[in-house]
Amino acid sequence: MSGLNYDRVVDGRQGWAVEDSRFDPDHLAKYESIFALGNGYLGQRAALEERYAGETRGMFAAGTFDRSEPEEAPELPNLPDLTNVELTLSGCRFSLERGKLLKYARWLNLYTGELCREVEWESPGGQRFSLRFARFVSQKQLHLTGMRVEITPHGNGAQITVRTGINGQVSNTGAQHFRKGDLRLYPDGILEMSAPTGQSKIWCCLHASCRFQLAGAPAEPALRPVIQRRAIYGSAELFCPAESALVLEKLCCVHTQRDVEYAAFSGSVSVEALKHTGYALARGAAGQGYAALFQESADVWAAWWAKQDIRIDSREVYHQTAVRFALYHLNSMSSKRDARVGIPAKGLSGEGYLGHSFWDTEIFILPFFTFTCPQAARLLLEYRWHCLAGAREKARRHGYEGAMYPWESAWITDEEAAPMWDGADIVTGQPMVVLTGLIEQHITADVSYAVWQYYSVTGDEDFMRRFGYEIIIDTARFWASRAQWDAVRNAFVIKDVIGPDEYKEHVDNNAYTNYMAHWNMGLALQLMGELPERDPETAAQLDVQFSFALSREKIRPVYDRLLLPAPGADGIIPQFDGYFALSPIDLTSYKRSKRVGTIFHDYNLQQLNTMQVSKQADVLMLLLLQDGLFDDGVKRRNYTFYEARTLHDSSLSKNTHCVLACDFGAAAEAEAFFEGSCGIDLGPEMASSDGGIHAAAMGGIWLCTVYGFGGVRMRDGQLCIAPRLHSQWRRLHFPLYWQGGRLEVTVSDKSVLVENKGEKAVSLWVSGSFVTILGGAGYEQEI
Amino acid sequence: MSGLNYDRVVDGRQGWAVEDSRFDPDHLAKYESIFALGNGYLGQRAALEERYAGETRGMFAAGTFDRSEPEEAPELPNLPDLTNVELTLSGCRFSLERGKLLKYARWLNLYTGELCREVEWESPGGQRFSLRFARFVSQKQLHLTGMRVEITPHGNGAQITVRTGINGQVSNTGAQHFRKGDLRLYPDGILEMSAPTGQSKIWCCLHASCRFQLAGAPAEPALRPVIQRRAIYGSAELFCPAESALVLEKLCCVHTQRDVEYAAFSGSVSVEALKHTGYALARGAAGQGYAALFQESADVWAAWWAKQDIRIDSREVYHQTAVRFALYHLNSMSSKRDARVGIPAKGLSGEGYLGHSFWDTEIFILPFFTFTCPQAARLLLEYRWHCLAGAREKARRHGYEGAMYPWESAWITDEEAAPMWDGADIVTGQPMVVLTGLIEQHITADVSYAVWQYYSVTGDEDFMRRFGYEIIIDTARFWASRAQWDAVRNAFVIKDVIGPDEYKEHVDNNAYTNYMAHWNMGLALQLMGELPERDPETAAQLDVQFSFALSREKIRPVYDRLLLPAPGADGIIPQFDGYFALSPIDLTSYKRSKRVGTIFHDYNLQQLNTMQVSKQADVLMLLLLQDGLFDDGVKRRNYTFYEARTLHDSSLSKNTHCVLACDFGAAAEAEAFFEGSCGIDLGPEMASSDGGIHAAAMGGIWLCTVYGFGGVRMRDGQLCIAPRLHSQWRRLHFPLYWQGGRLEVTVSDKSVLVENKGEKAVSLWVSGSFVTILGGAGYEQEI
Repeated sequence: MSGLNYDRVVDGRQGWAVEDSRFDPDHLAKYESIFALGNGYLGQRAALEERYAGETRGMFAAGTFDRSEPEEAPELPNLPDLTNVELTLSGCRFSLERGKLLKYARWLNLYTGELCREVEWESPGGQRFSLRFARFVSQKQLHLTGMRVEITPHGNGAQITVRTGINGQVSNTGAQHFRKGDLRLYPDGILEMSAPTGQSKIWCCLHASCRFQLAGAPAEPALRPVIQRRAIYGSAELFCPAESALVLEKLCCVHTQRDVEYAAFSGSVSVEALKHTGYALARGAAGQGYAALFQESADVWAAWWAKQDIRIDSREVYHQTAVRFALYHLNSMSSKRDARVGIPAKGLSGEGYLGHSFWDTEIFILPFFTFTCPQAARLLLEYRWHCLAGAREKARRHGYEGAMYPWESAWITDEEAAPMWDGADIVTGQPMVVLTGLIEQHITADVSYAVWQYYSVTGDEDFMRRFGYEIIIDTARFWASRAQWDAVRNAFVIKDVIGPDEYKEHVDNNAYTNYMAHWNMGLALQLMGELPERDPETAAQLDVQFSFALSREKIRPVYDRLLLPAPGADGIIPQFDGYFALSPIDLTSYKRSKRVGTIFHDYNLQQLNTMQVSKQADVLMLLLLQDGLFDDGVKRRNYTFYEARTLHDSSLSKNTHCVLACDFGAAAEAEAFFEGSCGIDLGPEMASSDGGIHAAAMGGIWLCTVYGFGGVRMRDGQLCIAPRLHSQWRRLHFPLYWQGGRLEVTVSDKSVLVENKGEKAVSLWVSGSFVTILGGAGYEQEI
Repeated sequence: MSGLNYDRVVDGRQGWAVEDSRFDPDHLAKYESIFALGNGYLGQRAALEERYAGETRGMFAAGTFDRSEPEEAPELPNLPDLTNVELTLSGCRFSLERGKLLKYARWLNLYTGELCREVEWESPGGQRFSLRFARFVSQKQLHLTGMRVEITPHGNGAQITVRTGINGQVSNTGAQHFRKGDLRLYPDGILEMSAPTGQSKIWCCLHASCRFQLAGAPAEPALRPVIQRRAIYGSAELFCPAESALVLEKLCCVHTQRDVEYAAFSGSVSVEALKHTGYALARGAAGQGYAALFQESADVWAAWWAKQDIRIDSREVYHQTAVRFALYHLNSMSSKRDARVGIPAKGLSGEGYLGHSFWDTEIFILPFFTFTCPQAARLLLEYRWHCLAGAREKARRHGYEGAMYPWESAWITDEEAAPMWDGADIVTGQPMVVLTGLIEQHITADVSYAVWQYYSVTGDEDFMRRFGYEIIIDTARFWASRAQWDAVRNAFVIKDVIGPDEYKEHVDNNAYTNYMAHWNMGLALQLMGELPERDPETAAQLDVQFSFALSREKIRPVYDRLLLPAPGADGIIPQFDGYFALSPIDLTSYKRSKRVGTIFHDYNLQQLNTMQVSKQADVLMLLLLQDGLFDDGVKRRNYTFYEARTLHDSSLSKNTHCVLACDFGAAAEAEAFFEGSCGIDLGPEMASSDGGIHAAAMGGIWLCTVYGFGGVRMRDGQLCIAPRLHSQWRRLHFPLYWQGGRLEVTVSDKSVLVENKGEKAVSLWVSGSFVTILGGAGYEQEI
C-alpha cells in the first residue's frame, strides 16, 4: 500500500498537496512519476537526490525525438541527470536505507509546483541531521530548474561532502541517444555538458550552477571538479557547525537545437550560441538565487490556478486533491508556446510510450483545454496540422488518399512512430509485429472530432481557416478511400481494423470507427457545401488544394452507403461484425483483481480475440462522443451489456464509464468509476505508473468531474450543464470557457449557479432550461 | 578501512582465501574487482546478486572490442548481466541495507576459483533467513559460468520470489555497445539473448538456465517470463517451509563471433550456429548441475596450482594469500588458447583502460609466464606478432619505418587504440589530446625485450622462426628511422617522447627509451649477423622480407652513434636531457598520502613537467632491465636519487623498487615496497581498484617474490638465483621453468635448495656459485 496522504496543510492551504509519508525504496518509480515536475517544455522525474538501487532518473525536453538505432522507433531521449546530489555526513553516505529515519515527509505542492522533502535522520554513527530538499521546474523561464538542499547537523558539527553535477551516463532503458559531446567547467564554477542525439543530431546543452551558504552567509568551499566520461561533477567539502544550516542551491538550465525559439531559423542554431545562451541563463540564475526564481515560477502557477482551479467541498479531501493533481499534471505536460509538440501519453514524466502522442490527447485531454484554456488547445491542434505531411505520406504508403494520422505521433515530420516490432513472442522467439500503427485507424476521425469540438466551443475562425478545415477535409478524403464496397452487404465497409478495444485485432466494421468516419465525412461534405458562401476566400484556397467537386464525388457515395452497425432488437450495437458470435467468458476474477492485464495469465491475445471481453470502452466511447445518435434506452442497454464485458485494462476506460453512469443517474457506479479514475496513478497499485503518469487519465479526471458530475456537454453546438453532484460533495465549483467568455459554475446539492464573467450574453441549457445570461450576470436553478 | 581478512580456513586450507567480513555498501566496486572471476576468455566482476546503488556489474569476453562511436577508442564492451538475482523473502526485497545483518562473510577461494557468501539476515519483518551464494567461471568449459543461491527461512516458512535472467540494459560508463538484438525463451525454460556490437558487428550470445530445488528435490515453480527492452527475465514464486533450503542453480554461457573456435573461418560464424551452440551448452549444463560443473573447473584449478603455487611460510598469512591472490588473477586474466588477445591492464575485471594492453604485459606480467608457464607467455607474444600489421601502419602514418607498436593495443588489426582525446581541460573546456598514444614509444623496445627474454628462458626456436625474429628486426628498423641526427651533439638522438615516468611529457633522450632502443637495434644486428649461418632457411625468409643488407645499413649507424645518457660525475643518469635543471620539490606530504595523484591537488601537469618529480620508476626500470650495463655503485646512487623524487603514483613502480632494494640488500625498504605492491589492490585505499584490479601489479607481486626475495634473474642468458629472504618468512618455495625443464626452489633463512624436476641437467648460478644440477637431482647451498 502506498503511503500517500492528501490532507497535508501547506502554507495554510489544504487540498493542495500530495504527500508521501513513508519512504518506500521498493516503489521508487511510482513516486518519481506522480511527483514529476514539468512546464510543457521540460519534464523531470522525481528521483530522490541521493542514489538508490532501482531508481529511474529521467528528464525530457519536448520534441527532441531520436532513434537509438535505425530499426527503433523515435523516442524522447533521457537527458543527462541534474538531480543526483550525494551527501557524505560526518563520513557516512546519506541514504535513507541506513541509520534511522526519524521523520520523513515528501510532498508535491500543487499550488506552487514545488517538490519538498523533510527528513530527520540519525546516521549509523548516531549523529542526528535535519535535511530539507526542494526543487521546481520554472513556469516562468521554461529552460530553468532549481534545487535546494539544506543540511543541519545536531549534537556536533559535521564534515559534509557534497557531490553533484551533470551526469550523461544515462540511457532510455539501456538505449543510448547521446553521442559523446563536450564538457566544460567555467572559471565561475558553472558546469556545462553538451551532446548531440545520435540520429536526429539535436544538440542538447545543460548548465548547472552550484552555490553554498553556511549559516546564512555565502560559503566558498573549494569545488573540486571531476571530469569523467559523459559526466562532470563538482565535489565540495566543508565543516558545518552544529545547529547551523549548510545550503546548496543548484540552478540548472537546458537548451536544445529543437527549441521553439530557433524554429524560424533556416538551419540549426549553432552549438556555440546554444552554449552561450545556456551559460548566460545559468549565470544570471546563480545571481538571482533559488528563492527569487522559485517565487517567479510560483507566481505563474498562482495566476494559472486563479483561472483554472476546480474547488470541491467534499467529505473526502482526496477528491479535491486528486482533481488538482490532474490539473497540475495537465498544465505541466502541455506546451505553452510550441505548436510542434504534442502531449506524450506519459506527459514528460517517464519513458513509457516513448514520448509519443495518441488519440489520448484529442479525446481525453483536449476537452479540458478546449473548455478551459483554448489557447493551449489550439496549439495542440496546430500540432496535428503540422503533422499533416506525415499523415498524407502514411496514407499514400498504405494505398489511400488524404491524411491518415499516425497511431503514435512523435516529431511533426514523422510518418508513423509506433514501433513496428516489439519484444519477442516468448514461445517462438520471433519478434512480434505491432499492429496498432498499421490498423488502429480511428485516430484520424478523432483528430477531426477534436478540431470541430474546439471550433464549436471557441468559434475560432482564424484557426479553422488556417488549420482546421484542411484537417477535416483531408481526413474525410482518407476515409472515403479507406472504405471498400461490399457487394453482398450492398454497402461500403471498413475492414481489418483495431477499434478502441485493443483486445480485438483485425475486426471488420468496428462501430466506433465506422460511425466516427461517417461523421468525419459528413462534416467535410457539410463544410464544402457551406464554405463557398460563408467564407469564399478560404473556400477558394481549399478548393484549389482539394477540388471540392472531386472530393465530394469521392466522399459522398461512401458517406451515403457506409455500413453503420445498428442496434439489434435488444438495442445492443455490435462492437464489430460477428461480435455476438464470440464466446462469453466469466470475468469475475479479473474484474476483482487490483492489477490490470491479469487475463493474460490465462489467455493470450489470439484467444482473447475469440471472446466477449473488452480492454476498454469501445461502443460506449461512441455513445459518449456521438451523443445524439442513440436514444437513452439504447445507451443504457449498451452500457449494461458492454460494461459487464469490459476489464478496464486501459487508463482510458473508467472515466468514460463514469460520465455515462452520471448521465444515467447511476450514482454509485459513477462514483466508483471516479474513484477508479483517480486511482490510476494515485491508487494503491504501485507499479502501474513506473513509466510515467497516465496523461489521458488526468484528462479523464477532469471529464469525470466536469462532464460527469458537472454535467457539462456540448450538444448540437449548444452548451448544456446538467449537474449530478457526487454524494460526498457539498459543492463543486469549476470554470468554463464558452465562445470567448468565461463562465463559473457552482453546484450544490440543491442548485446550480452559472455566472457569466464575460461581457457578452451567453445562451445555454441549464438542467433542462434554455436560458440566456447577460454579461456579468448569473443564473441559478434548483436541481 | 577494508574488512579484508586473509586467514580464513576453507576446506581445511589456510592462506587460500581473501575474505570480506564486513559488508561495505560504499565501496562495492573494490570488492567487485578483487573478487572478480575469470578464465582468460570470460571475466566477471563480483557484483552482489541483489542490486545496490553504486554497483558496477560487468562481464567481458576477450577480444570483443567495439567503438561506441567513431571518435571513441575501441573498448571491451560490458556484456549483458547474468549475476543479478532479486529475492523477495516473505514480501520483503532482500537487501543487506535493510533489516539486520546478523552474520556476513564473503570470500574468494583462490584454490577452487569459487566466490562464496554466507549471510544470516533478519528481515525488517523480524524473520531470520540463512543465505548462501556461490559462483564460478569455469576453467574447464571456458564459455560457462555457474551460480548457486540457497535460501533457508527460519521460524516460519516463507513465500519466496526469485527474479533473474539476462539484462542487456548495460553500458560502459554510459556508452552503449550492443545494438538491439534477439530475445528468446526456449520451451525448456532456457533464456537467450543475442545482440551485435555496433561498430565491430560481433554478435554475442548469452544463455541462462535456471533450476530450482526445494529440500533437496527438484522443484518446478511456474517461471513467469518477462521480456523487456534488452532484457529477458524469469520470475518464480514458491513457498519454502521453515528450515528447508530453496536452491537456485543458474548456469549460463557466453559465445561470440570472435571466439577463437571460429578464427579459422573465412567469414563470421552464423548467428544461428552461435545460438545453437550456446543453447546446447546451456542445456547440457542444466543436466549436469552446479556441483559437477564446479568440480570439473576446480579440478583444472587444482592441477594448475599443483604446478604454479608459491608457498610462503610467513609470520603474516597475508603474504601467502597476497601472492596466491596475484597468481589467481594472473591465471584468470590470461588466455589459454587464443593468440589474438592480450592481457588488458585491468585483466577482465573492469572497464578501466578499456580492456587495452600496455607495456604492463611485456615488462611486468610476462616474466611470470615466461618463467613458470611458457606456453601462456608464447600466446601473449604471438599476440604481438599478430599486431605487427597495425604497428607497421602506425609507423608509416608517423613517417617512420618498421614496426611501431601501439601504446595501447586492442584488437590485433587496430593500429593505436589509445584514445586521441580524453575528457576536457577543465579550465579551457577544450578536449585534451592524449599524448601517450603518440609519443610514449618505449613499448616498441619492450615487446622485443620480452620476446628475447622468452627465447632466452625457453630456447623456443619454433617461436622465434615464426614470430620472434620478425618482431625484433622490424622494431629495430623502427628505432633506426625514429632517431634523428643531432649535428651539435654529434650523435643520433630520440626527441619528444614520454618515458615510463608519465609526469614528464615531450622530453628528449629519455634514458630508458634510448638504452632500450639501442639494445633492440643491437640485438637485431646481432641476429642478422648470426642467423644466416645458424638458421639459413629462416634467415633467407627474413632477408626477403627486410633485406638484411639494407636494414643493417639503416640500423648500424644509428646503433653506433645513438646518444646514451651516461652517469655524471656523481653517478646519476639523467632521466632525460635537462633533467638536473628542473626545480627540486619537497614531496614529503605527497609521499605520506595514502592516495595516489594527490600532487594534482596543488599542481597541474604543465607544472610537474618543470619539477624533479616522477610518477614511477624510469631510470630505475633501465637499471633493472639492463642489469649488466651499470655497476652496483651507479645503481645504488641512482636508486637513492630517483626514489626520493618518485611518488609511486603508478602501480608499476613499487615492485621495481622492491626488486632493486632486494638486490642492494636494503631489506626494510624492500619489505615496505613489497607491502605496497600487495596493497595496490588489497590495501586500504578503497577506490583505486574500482575500474578493475591492476594486472601489472599482480605480475609485480610475482616479481617482488621471485625476482626480489627469491633473487631470480637472467643475466647474459644465464639463470641466477640469489635469494634474500623476507624477514617475516621462514620459508619460500617457488617453481621455475628453465629451458624446457622444471626447477623448484626452496629458500629458508639458512639455505637455498634448487631441485631439478626435469630430465636434463641444468647449469645456473646459485648465490654466487655456478653449478650444474643433474635431472632429478637437487643442490642446496647455505646463504
